[in-house]
Amino acid sequence: MTTSREVRLKSRPSGMPVADNFEIASVELPAPGAGEVQIKNLWMTVDPYMRGRMVDRPSYVAPFQIGEALQGGAVGEVVASNAPGLKAGDLVQSMLGWREGFNAPAAMVQKLDTHGLPPQAFLGIAGMPGMTAYVGLLKIAALKPGDVVFVSAAAGAVGSIVCQIAKIMGHTVIGSAGGPEKCAYLKEIGVDHAIDYKAEKDLTAALLKAAPGGIDVYFENVGGEHMEAALNAAKQGARFAICGMIAQYNDSEPPPGPRNMALIIGKSLRLEGFIVSNHFDMLPAYLKDLSGWIAAGKIKWKETVEVGIENAPTAFIKLFKGENIGKMLVKLG
Amino acid sequence: MTTSREVRLKSRPSGMPVADNFEIASVELPAPGAGEVQIKNLWMTVDPYMRGRMVDRPSYVAPFQIGEALQGGAVGEVVASNAPGLKAGDLVQSMLGWREGFNAPAAMVQKLDTHGLPPQAFLGIAGMPGMTAYVGLLKIAALKPGDVVFVSAAAGAVGSIVCQIAKIMGHTVIGSAGGPEKCAYLKEIGVDHAIDYKAEKDLTAALLKAAPGGIDVYFENVGGEHMEAALNAAKQGARFAICGMIAQYNDSEPPPGPRNMALIIGKSLRLEGFIVSNHFDMLPAYLKDLSGWIAAGKIKWKETVEVGIENAPTAFIKLFKGENIGKMLVKLG
Repeated sequence: MTTSREVRLKSRPSGMPVADNFEIASVELPAPGAGEVQIKNLWMTVDPYMRGRMVDRPSYVAPFQIGEALQGGAVGEVVASNAPGLKAGDLVQSMLGWREGFNAPAAMVQKLDTHGLPPQAFLGIAGMPGMTAYVGLLKIAALKPGDVVFVSAAAGAVGSIVCQIAKIMGHTVIGSAGGPEKCAYLKEIGVDHAIDYKAEKDLTAALLKAAPGGIDVYFENVGGEHMEAALNAAKQGARFAICGMIAQYNDSEPPPGPRNMALIIGKSLRLEGFIVSNHFDMLPAYLKDLSGWIAAGKIKWKETVEVGIENAPTAFIKLFKGENIGKMLVKLG
Repeated sequence: MTTSREVRLKSRPSGMPVADNFEIASVELPAPGAGEVQIKNLWMTVDPYMRGRMVDRPSYVAPFQIGEALQGGAVGEVVASNAPGLKAGDLVQSMLGWREGFNAPAAMVQKLDTHGLPPQAFLGIAGMPGMTAYVGLLKIAALKPGDVVFVSAAAGAVGSIVCQIAKIMGHTVIGSAGGPEKCAYLKEIGVDHAIDYKAEKDLTAALLKAAPGGIDVYFENVGGEHMEAALNAAKQGARFAICGMIAQYNDSEPPPGPRNMALIIGKSLRLEGFIVSNHFDMLPAYLKDLSGWIAAGKIKWKETVEVGIENAPTAFIKLFKGENIGKMLVKLG
């Protein structure tokens, strides 16, 4: 018998999540039953999309329930196995984050071959955020030679990979992020023009200064004013990959959309939303490309790490305050 | 020498266009010069997109200039020709509407073979509005078997053709229009559910009542509240063909966009704007399909007609007041 602490949803956030929306509870884990494994989580991820699951409404994933442990991506280690194919010491991935450990049927975890990468990379560059960048840029935005690419939340887990993939493919990249530290990071990863949106009064003007001829592709992570600026700066036939709108996830009454929606017509724009889980067919291609880029030293990643399950809510809240550069993670093991 | 009256832009409309934004002037037409023809216009079209050209801003077509005759689609008859290939009595199409007659180089008009249709049909069902419906539905929205289709401004020149093409192809069609007369027309052309948006307090509720399972395709002619309802009612992976946003063409400060833009992500929606002139490669296919549908009695069209060049501004203004069913035309000849 071992003890695992977990984070439960205590109350649904209204606006920005606060510490009191969460509670830490302890559960006892017996020895794993037949066909089960016991996992000790080493790392868990916090992602903006989880905010949507805290609201009680129909969506593409079921809402979290009050009093129950939250869920999300995690990387862990098998500590006891009562199932064939998995043994103590094996690394695994699961959607059972937000807890220090768990027992589960073996089918609920996937054995992880790290190919020499640190295991937590599979929650970032080699996981869902990396795939999101790849799918959004190559499939949804259908990146083509010569495209000028604009990325919002460009220093974030997804945005920073979007910027680098576009740079590897030879594009001019404009990234927007909040504050000088993030903008310095953007320069470090090769972004051509870093816009500190917090320092700009007129985001459209800043964007058109960076891209006087306009943009061909917009990778949308933010929404609101960023979308409006992107519509204003879009060239004829520009494509928007709509990945997230973090600026409004905490609004109890969502803000009105951009005033310049009619530009979609005159400029023949295509705006397309996507959920990475619908595009897992591209995973082998991504991992192949990624391993080449990593081997060639062409791609970097950064982590912002909180330590201990008790700090998972803090890590999550910091996402919405923009207090991360690169992937926000919680180290558990 | 003959006299032609023409409509000139006297002042740029601010909000809803008014009669005083236009002036009627007379010009004398000499005999056509070498390579020129003289045309007497029989019909001219007024279309919502022309409102955009009355604003002095960069767009996909140059703005109209104060003091100059407006332009737009027209069908006319050659009255004198000084050019090979055209002779008196020939029917032609041109973009030199808003005037009773004109002299122009022969290359500025296209000889018209009506295939037995009334000539003004080439300003509607067999012209730009018909092509717009066809392109938007088949290419932009990529209509596929089983799709439930929602059309706004469904009793208008474009919308009424969209509805009928979708019905011919076996789809469930929901049309929105303002007032009982238009809704009766929608039933007449086979629309499954006609929504009188002026009589509905909650357009989303009305749409979901007509399409309890949601919509797959939205053909957008209106914008604003209609877009918001369509986003709410969209199924996973729905496609929006964004053709127009007539509700806001007269707003000097465009209204905010829909509050529910984030649904684009969770529902993986695709919104695509288009301008029919970028898709003329589909014209032969459209005319082939159309002639089959007309021969089989499968498609109808309706015209709302003002008579005389002096009433062209009235016809144009009526478009924005929703006072047309089907194609709004001005009979000149």
